[in-house]
Amino acid sequence: MSTTHFTSANIQSWERFYRTNFINCLSGFKSATLIGTNDTAAYPNLAIFSNIVHIGAAPALIGFINRPLEAAPHTLSNIKATGIYTMNHIHTSLIKAAHQTSAKYASGVSEFEKTGLTIEWKENIPAPFVGESKIKYVLELEEIVPIKQNGTYFVIGKVAAIFLEENIVDEDGFLHIENAGSISSLGIDGYYEPHFITRLPYAKP
Amino acid sequence: MSTTHFTSANIQSWERFYRTNFINCLSGFKSATLIGTNDTAAYPNLAIFSNIVHIGAAPALIGFINRPLEAAPHTLSNIKATGIYTMNHIHTSLIKAAHQTSAKYASGVSEFEKTGLTIEWKENIPAPFVGESKIKYVLELEEIVPIKQNGTYFVIGKVAAIFLEENIVDEDGFLHIENAGSISSLGIDGYYEPHFITRLPYAKP
Repeated sequence: MSTTHFTSANIQSWERFYRTNFINCLSGFKSATLIGTNDTAAYPNLAIFSNIVHIGAAPALIGFINRPLEAAPHTLSNIKATGIYTMNHIHTSLIKAAHQTSAKYASGVSEFEKTGLTIEWKENIPAPFVGESKIKYVLELEEIVPIKQNGTYFVIGKVAAIFLEENIVDEDGFLHIENAGSISSLGIDGYYEPHFITRLPYAKP
Repeated sequence: MSTTHFTSANIQSWERFYRTNFINCLSGFKSATLIGTNDTAAYPNLAIFSNIVHIGAAPALIGFINRPLEAAPHTLSNIKATGIYTMNHIHTSLIKAAHQTSAKYASGVSEFEKTGLTIEWKENIPAPFVGESKIKYVLELEEIVPIKQNGTYFVIGKVAAIFLEENIVDEDGFLHIENAGSISSLGIDGYYEPHFITRLPYAKP
């Protein structure tokens, strides 16, 4: 197998979409998730995000990267306005509809209506869920960290409620999310079905 | 399929390891990656990380979450000291050795020696690579953002060089990392093999 090598000068010289595909794939497999929000008039928005990280379990904190406001304004401005949002796992049969939420719809257009995904409301939670999603949770905004290098934002939220299928929860709290069909994404447009290999015991020296 | 519901009070009441497993899985599939660093005496360190995000392609920025210093001191202090680190994809046959790097070895113990992974040096790059890894890249430290809510750090680096197998690069820059056997992780100890489903065209309203 022959290997190849690229310098930062090479990377800078690449055509824009080539570089976008390449660098977006380089960091590896990601969590494809639909984020549901409302504006202050309770008008719903739904958008696919994939750059999501676990930050900590106590308190339960999850972060995601939001692109610059001019490229992706709705989710972030809604989160700023309401302080609450939902994350909804995507399973195989939802991939096309989920991907379609990345289209640049105008303000006031509901991605739920455009994609056919079912909007779901739950008592006392003022942000919309994806009805079809089998693993979903609510986040309360903790902090929005501006990334000065490129105008993106690191958005930190605290898990406020979780809804999921009972049968995916293992005895020790591990979630077999593959049993709910949760998929992974790669780059900006690749979708993958992860197959379980193993769990390994706590490593000791 | 019956669904179940947990409040933030439930989450807080869980036994520590149950909560760690559950919340670490909740955010979905992740990129399992070995980070190679040196201390100022050029003594190498290697550790597995999974909370990695793509931040942007121009400049090419990738971030990761480092646990609090008392839990995971070596990688972060080395990055602070030298400003340079490598990220190395993990393929199926490397999973056991990669997982073993998470053991709490004392300072001055090389995870390369303990796990049998091959240390690899490249000209003019003062951080170690994993010889077996088929997709690897160098990052220059841009910024360390302390996360005040739990003492973790969001570490932002700029891609300075990339080494990979030629045959995984598609015409438009997409990387078929599954052809190099790159795996995904879930939670703190689950490993998965992602199977390609599809790439979808740019979504338009």
